[in-house]
This record gives sequence, structure tokens and C-alpha cells, in this order.
Amino acid sequence: MLTIHDSFTFEENDFDITAYGEVLLDMISREEAPLKKCSNFSRYFGGSPANVLVNMQRLENKTALISRIGKDEFGEYLREILENEGVNLDCLQYDQEERTPIIFVNKSKKTPSWLAYRGADIKLQISKQIYDKIDNSSIFFTSSFILSQNPARAAAIKAVEYAVKKDKFFAFDPNFRAQLWPEGNKGTQIIKELIAQADIIKPSLDDAYHLYGQEHPENYLKKYHSDGAKIIILSLGKDGVLLSDGSTDPLHIPVFSEKVIDVTGAGDSFWSGLLTGILKGLPVKEAARLGNAVAAFKIQGVGALSSVPPLREIISYYDLQPIEGGNFNERN
Amino acid sequence: MLTIHDSFTFEENDFDITAYGEVLLDMISREEAPLKKCSNFSRYFGGSPANVLVNMQRLENKTALISRIGKDEFGEYLREILENEGVNLDCLQYDQEERTPIIFVNKSKKTPSWLAYRGADIKLQISKQIYDKIDNSSIFFTSSFILSQNPARAAAIKAVEYAVKKDKFFAFDPNFRAQLWPEGNKGTQIIKELIAQADIIKPSLDDAYHLYGQEHPENYLKKYHSDGAKIIILSLGKDGVLLSDGSTDPLHIPVFSEKVIDVTGAGDSFWSGLLTGILKGLPVKEAARLGNAVAAFKIQGVGALSSVPPLREIISYYDLQPIEGGNFNERN
Repeated sequence: MLTIHDSFTFEENDFDITAYGEVLLDMISREEAPLKKCSNFSRYFGGSPANVLVNMQRLENKTALISRIGKDEFGEYLREILENEGVNLDCLQYDQEERTPIIFVNKSKKTPSWLAYRGADIKLQISKQIYDKIDNSSIFFTSSFILSQNPARAAAIKAVEYAVKKDKFFAFDPNFRAQLWPEGNKGTQIIKELIAQADIIKPSLDDAYHLYGQEHPENYLKKYHSDGAKIIILSLGKDGVLLSDGSTDPLHIPVFSEKVIDVTGAGDSFWSGLLTGILKGLPVKEAARLGNAVAAFKIQGVGALSSVPPLREIISYYDLQPIEGGNFNERN
Repeated sequence: MLTIHDSFTFEENDFDITAYGEVLLDMISREEAPLKKCSNFSRYFGGSPANVLVNMQRLENKTALISRIGKDEFGEYLREILENEGVNLDCLQYDQEERTPIIFVNKSKKTPSWLAYRGADIKLQISKQIYDKIDNSSIFFTSSFILSQNPARAAAIKAVEYAVKKDKFFAFDPNFRAQLWPEGNKGTQIIKELIAQADIIKPSLDDAYHLYGQEHPENYLKKYHSDGAKIIILSLGKDGVLLSDGSTDPLHIPVFSEKVIDVTGAGDSFWSGLLTGILKGLPVKEAARLGNAVAAFKIQGVGALSSVPPLREIISYYDLQPIEGGNFNERN
């Protein structure tokens, strides 16, 4: 059984992490108003798996993306960013007919409302190249957006099955939203099947609400475990994170900084710090501290990709020392 | 045979005009740059048939729209504008799965580049309500965007056939762009079939180029006529329009004003003045002068819907007098 004190060792691989999922445009309103009333939008690089990879590149990992975009100018914009950040794009597919996906989001101090224009992402297809990429990676990551519609869903499930069969470390973001799923809330069944296969999941309180309804954080942890989750990191926003492996009481880690400019992509930056720590052979609870540190850095800037500097700067800024062993700065 | 000196009489109908086609968001960049490099966009009401109708409502006509939008906040935004302008929406369909369409356009002094996100518009379906609406209208209008993909194309062709069979005045905007058509340039065949059925077409030089390649304006007129066009109004931008019925040399009408702020929607505002004139029983060449006057007014403001005031203001502003008979101010 996995515990939050465990660390992992990985064979030498071409890639530290391969992520399967969407890369898209976030079109964020300039007005704080319902979407219907917003007239001005600014375009940002987006998509949780793509954000995680770009952050992880900046934290000096080798990453590869499995995704699909349109043969259009918005797709070119995204590809150039990924290329400049050094993300491997062998498995970036181009759709001749469907467009690069866009999510419109209204700026809001409460939970923002959003509208997804799906396209090429839904047509993601499994390929031999994808299996090869998974073979050559230490970690396989995916999230729930790409699972919401076929054929991308079927391909994702094949990729996950392959990664699990090949004993890859499987990290899953169970950020389910019924409005993206043609079958609505019945989609939760698929999410729960992946939760049971993952080595680690990192839901937010909002994600947990969309899966289980209104509960206390400790009850959310119980529900995830009873659905088969091994290690859960439940993020509580400004209240930090709860770590649980189901064996003892959950461990609470507070946030590193309360200074907040923009929380967009905070979860993705947490993932990138966490997985960087796991790749370094840190125990999960130490890796989670690294996740908190990267997220704290990130939310002091604007945009999902802002403010993730090289790892050594984050470590020195927060004077990070491992409590339970491992080394933040070196590969094990 | 129709000539540019002909006028038309219409039975009393519930609607002066019914238009079949798209209503959508124009997302126009704030930067003058290739779309790939544009980061900021502003949202406008768009779609040629919808623009024509809103302008015609402002010119005191009774209009109805046949279109399809998504069940989303952008669709609500469009519906509210149409409702406030008084356009009849009995035949506005709502798609449960597909989104309200969007066209991204970059601001440009040259020909702008654009990227269409199609959705609900493509799913427009024929219905008894649509046939009823055509029955109760004097003019039937459509353009080429909605013809580019099925099932909306098949429904459009049925609607056109019905309008022609019922001897309705059929106005067609042959603004063909191969990039919207799955079959590319083979789509021109469908456009030419509708050109042959229309009572009047109003291509721009750009539209003619996309249909026939590079030619002189007089050659474009010949090509349209040889494809069966009856009355052609070829718009030459700042050089005015050429009118042709194929019987004599084309008639040139210069623009009313050279003052230009924004030409977006100039063609749609020309259509609305032209068709308003035809509904008033003016000869086509007088109706075209009314089209020029409305377009001249429009291009002094920004946005496709700006600056179309009540007809009497336009007539008095330009001191418009019919040359060949008819009355600009009254219904015949």
C-alpha cells in the first residue's frame, strides 16, 4: 500500500513526464460580469496538462505532450509556445477540419462561469507513437477535460491502461464537470475508474463538490478512498492542502504565501512542483511542500504560465529544507 | 427579362423580408497583426443576414430571421439584440449541443484574415414554420456562409426552392469563400445554381475574385450573367457600384460620401437600403442609390450595426430625390 511517506525510484527515461490532454486558448474577459455581458477578451495559453508540462520544463524536467489542435493560426500560436518552452511535440496531432479549442471565461472574484468551444481536442487518436512515448516516460499524467467526449475519451482510457500495465507512475487530476459530458453526471463513473487506477490524485474542493456534492473535506477524502484512491492531495485554496493515504489522519500543509495576484493555474503549478519532487525521489509529503512552494510563487503573477522560475530560485526564496529526507536540489 | 429600370409590386404580407442564415459573434482583434499574434479581442454582433435585417428594421421594415444558435450565453446576447431591434424570431432555432458560432477577425487595413468557429449554424433544419414564414414575406434573402456545410445547406436549398416556386423576390449574396466549404472550390457550383435563381445579386469585387479569379469588373458582370444572373450590383468599394441587367452597358453609381471610419458591414447596409427601396416600389437603379446612401451613413461609424438611423434622416441628410420616378419616403 502506498503512503504519503513513500518515495519512488524511476529508471532513466527519455522523458520525466508525458501528459495526455488538451492545449487550448483561455479567452478571459476584461470585464467582471456574466459572460453574456462581456465585450472584451484577452487570449492566454491554457489547458491543464499543457500548463503542467510547461511549468515542469521550467523546473528542469523533460516533458512530452499528447494532444490535438486545429490546423489554424490559434494552433500555431500554442505550438510555438510549447516549442519555445522545450516540450516534446512528437505526439501533437493536427486536425484538418476541427478548430483549436477555446474556453471563454469571465473574470470573477467568485467561481467564474465559462463556455467551452471544443474541436480538434475531441478527435485525439491513439497511436503507436503514443504508446512509445509512454514507454519512455517515468510519469503519465492526465486530467478529466479530455475524458469528457469520444473519441478522445476512448483513446485516453487506452493510454491509461497501457501506462498502468507498464507500471508507470500515474498521476490523475479528477476535475470532473458534468456540463462538458454528453451523459452529464453519469460521467462520474469513468472518473472513479481512473481514480482507482491512479497512484496519486489532486482534487480541489470544487472538484470534490462536482463529484460527491457538498461534504466536509475529511468526508471527501473518505469518499475518494472508498472509490479506490491511493494517495489524495486535496487542495483547500488559501488553507493549503490535506494529504491522505487512508492509513492515518490526514496531514495538513499550509500555504507558503498568502500574497495573491491571480490564482489561475495555481493547481497546475502545484502539480508541477509535486511531480518534480516525486521525480527527485522525495517522499510524497515533501514533494507536496515543493508543490505548495511553486504554487505560492505562481499566484504572485498573472496568467497560468507566469512566475514559475527555475527550481533553485524557488527553493532559495522559501529557504526550503526537506523534513523527512531527500534532497530538493538534486536528482536521486 | 428584368432590367435595372424595373420596379416591383408586392402583396401585403406580414413580413417585408425573411432572411435565412447565420447570426454570430464577430470577435475582432484590437491589434493590427496576424491572428496568431493577436491577444485582445472585442465582441460584436455579426452575421450578414442578421445585420441586413437589423438595418432593415431601423429603416422601418418588418423582418424575420431563420437561424440557429447555441443554448449558451453568447446565443442569449445575440437573441436579446435581435429582440430589441424587433426582428421576428419565430424561426430562430436553439441547438442543445452545438455552440453559437464565432468568427475571429484581425483588424487590418488590407483584407483581414479570419477564423470561423462553426457550430449551431450548421445544424439549421427546415421546418413547416420556415415555409410559413416565406409564404408571409415579400422578399427572401440568403447569403453563402450558411450554404457551405450540411445540413444547413440542404435546408437552405429547400427554402430557396420554395421561395422561388412561390414567386417571392429572391435576393442572394454570392459571397463564396472556399475555406468554409468541405469540398473547397467545387462549392462554386452550388453558388452558381443559386445565382441563376436569384432576382438580384450583390457581389463585391472580392466575392467575384473568389468565384472567377482575377478579371476586370466588366468581365465579372459578363461571367455572372452567363451563369444566369438577372440583375447584378457589383460593389467596387470607394468607387461605388456597377449595375447590370445584361441588356446594355453597366450603369455606374458613385459613392455618396468618401468619409470612412469603418467599412465593416458596409455591404449589409447597402443591401438594407437597396431592398428597402425595392419594397417601396422604386426602380432598381433608384433603390441602389438608397443602398449607397445607407452604406455611406454606416461607414462613418464603427461596427456592423452602427449608424443606421431612420430612413427619413438619411434621405434628408443627402437631399435624396428619385431621378427616374417612385418616392423614397412612402410605401407604394
